[in-house]
Amino acid sequence: MSAAEDFLRAKSLRTEEALHEVVAGWRGAPPRLVEAVRHSLFAGGKRLRPALALGACELVRGVDTPALPAACALEMIHTYSLIHDDLPAMDDDDLRRGRPTCHKVFGEATAILAGDALLTMAFDTAAETESVEVVRELARAAGICGMAGGQQLDMDAEGRALTLDELRRVHALKTGALIRAAARCGALCGGADAAALGALGEYGARLGLAFQITDDILDVTGDAAALGKRTGADAAHTKATYPGLAGLDASRRLAEEAVDGAVAALEGFGPEAAPLRDLARFVLERDR
Amino acid sequence: MSAAEDFLRAKSLRTEEALHEVVAGWRGAPPRLVEAVRHSLFAGGKRLRPALALGACELVRGVDTPALPAACALEMIHTYSLIHDDLPAMDDDDLRRGRPTCHKVFGEATAILAGDALLTMAFDTAAETESVEVVRELARAAGICGMAGGQQLDMDAEGRALTLDELRRVHALKTGALIRAAARCGALCGGADAAALGALGEYGARLGLAFQITDDILDVTGDAAALGKRTGADAAHTKATYPGLAGLDASRRLAEEAVDGAVAALEGFGPEAAPLRDLARFVLERDR
Repeated sequence: MSAAEDFLRAKSLRTEEALHEVVAGWRGAPPRLVEAVRHSLFAGGKRLRPALALGACELVRGVDTPALPAACALEMIHTYSLIHDDLPAMDDDDLRRGRPTCHKVFGEATAILAGDALLTMAFDTAAETESVEVVRELARAAGICGMAGGQQLDMDAEGRALTLDELRRVHALKTGALIRAAARCGALCGGADAAALGALGEYGARLGLAFQITDDILDVTGDAAALGKRTGADAAHTKATYPGLAGLDASRRLAEEAVDGAVAALEGFGPEAAPLRDLARFVLERDR
Repeated sequence: MSAAEDFLRAKSLRTEEALHEVVAGWRGAPPRLVEAVRHSLFAGGKRLRPALALGACELVRGVDTPALPAACALEMIHTYSLIHDDLPAMDDDDLRRGRPTCHKVFGEATAILAGDALLTMAFDTAAETESVEVVRELARAAGICGMAGGQQLDMDAEGRALTLDELRRVHALKTGALIRAAARCGALCGGADAAALGALGEYGARLGLAFQITDDILDVTGDAAALGKRTGADAAHTKATYPGLAGLDASRRLAEEAVDGAVAALEGFGPEAAPLRDLARFVLERDR
């Protein structure tokens, strides 16, 4: 197992434990709604965003604990977005991370509410950092000029031809903003100065782009068992993808450039940034 | 026009103006999504929650401006909940505040996203108070042990008989929690001490109960033109209501008791609490 995989696994375990504590604290919540939240929140996600937040905090402060609430909030927001994106009115997906989607198991109304509850409770969890900066960062990344806006652009674009620039904008909002926010939230929790915050934000933005391009590549080249979701789904929805617009080889080059950019953004840091550098390079290996 | 109506109108105007500023600040957001948000956010709501927040802040600090971001956030959260509650998978309503519901005009996907965006941006707006306490208060009131949980209980209860105690719990979570949070957020923004915060929270909780009971009464006795939504809708959905479970006269008595409790909660304050006392009494007049 590579260093990046070790890093991801260690941060994932810490996040998993913290998320279980968060959910256990919801006393008096309707059991069916908690069950629906658990179904999607504990479905074996990679916990990339929490790992970024914890790694960024550790880089600037030497410990990752101050970023743990932000890490949980990021994963809760990411999970809410998956639940809502999978709804029949949106992408209408039956399978996610190898399991039936939330609405397939619990019905549409409960799935909508499970997403709403996760998004809302993410801000209660984020408030545990005692930082309004972290709250603001998360809200803006997930909001109308970020993830929610990106999903709208993605829906608006279905069935019509996008340019590569338009696709880049969709991705920057839909997935890039939250991955960038993950690195920035970790930096904020670690007490980063403006330069370190800027560098980690840049790192996150480039990493997010690389991640999305490889996701598009995997959708073309991967198999459903490895991914835990339907492949070719983007093509079936006539959704624009990097391989579709730029070709597979050019897409791989773009992903490599993005990873190089992410690594370059960390040049002001010393060897202590090795885990984040390894993580950036690891993103490329996902499609091999 | 009564003093309470003057108060509500003045606070509503301040909130309206501030909400327009909030939305104008969303540069680069997808126009269609902003349009869907505007459709529901600027639909002539009473702005009760903002008025409570502004009134509570004014009571403890003499000015209401510090609570303006919280007031906006409360109305954004309230509006998101209406958009999602009206969805076909939820209450399936076509009409709200006298206008077609968000999903009737913009489609389900955009309506879901408009609600998501409003909920998310509410926390960006709340962060303008620079208080994590306010963020926490809002998230808990709207979350899985509050409004979202109450909506789940309400859905679970459809078609089966509820006791009055069960109905009280649904209402306490679904509408009571956010109205209580409105008063508490205003108090927090005004720098209230623990006693004032507790008293205003109690006031809000009682007022919320009175508000919900009169809402149930209006659904039985009101007409659609005055309410701007279908009446008899609760009965058509075989939803439990106070008049249905306790009778109309007993429901009116319960509402009066709740208002008396709200006014009593303010007994530690002097004449400066007159606007909030008047507001509590005004709630009763809505059904006459």
